[in-house]
Amino acid sequence: MITAVAFLALQTIGCMEKESNKGGSELQSIFPKGDLGPEENFTGKAWNTGLVANDSIYNTVVGNVYFEPGARSNWHTHPSGQILVITDGVGFHQVKGQPKQTIRKGEIVKCPPNVEHWHGASKDTGLQQMYILPKTEKGIVQWLQPVTDEEYNNQ
Amino acid sequence: MITAVAFLALQTIGCMEKESNKGGSELQSIFPKGDLGPEENFTGKAWNTGLVANDSIYNTVVGNVYFEPGARSNWHTHPSGQILVITDGVGFHQVKGQPKQTIRKGEIVKCPPNVEHWHGASKDTGLQQMYILPKTEKGIVQWLQPVTDEEYNNQ
Repeated sequence: MITAVAFLALQTIGCMEKESNKGGSELQSIFPKGDLGPEENFTGKAWNTGLVANDSIYNTVVGNVYFEPGARSNWHTHPSGQILVITDGVGFHQVKGQPKQTIRKGEIVKCPPNVEHWHGASKDTGLQQMYILPKTEKGIVQWLQPVTDEEYNNQ
Repeated sequence: MITAVAFLALQTIGCMEKESNKGGSELQSIFPKGDLGPEENFTGKAWNTGLVANDSIYNTVVGNVYFEPGARSNWHTHPSGQILVITDGVGFHQVKGQPKQTIRKGEIVKCPPNVEHWHGASKDTGLQQMYILPKTEKGIVQWLQPVTDEEYNNQ
């Protein structure tokens, strides 16, 4: 009986960790984790999976980034803007000169063309986010300077 | 002790049902269920949530459809094609004149411009799918005839 209790307890704890997504545990993932984003464009660990490559039929690039807790992109711009779809976790999005927004599962973020922004995970919980880049005939991304700890921690 | 075991067992069973997504139980949902798609365009129950409305900045429409088991769209075309992102469950996608494809969580489907297609859930398991419509300056969708039971069941 003690064995049975321990077995069930372990299964239950495993399940609850998966559902609570707290404290840096793995979030609900739809796609493979992908490749680690390069240090020159990201602070901390951000894993990128390409889903739709650029072509001249759709002119749309789609992918997923899993930001580990505390990880974030550098400041950057997109010549035709960007749409983010948050599929799990908690993170931040900031447009230059505006307050940092908290972003959560189920939310959509739109950043207009050529507007400087960054996005990433909260300190304690990671972020699963899909990105959609439209009108790629104008280009994809221009990478800028890192987001400092002061900028990241700013309320 | 018996009470403790029963409590843990119930918690475990609840968790496993949510993860298995079998037999028509609710799938993992990221977005609200949304509005029931109209009978003239869908067979069975398909729930639509708009995520990104059309505009002249992004020229991209994004949304989510939850197809209940057995539900599917009519045949239809998109003037600039469509990208589907399957986020949970099991379903089908078929391009006119080609075999029906089975589609699952984590998969991407691209349907080129002006190509007749339909998509929907499998008989036993529902489908959660995001859709991306690029280059909406050319239009969104042209609805056609329903997918017959014979077409739906065809291997």
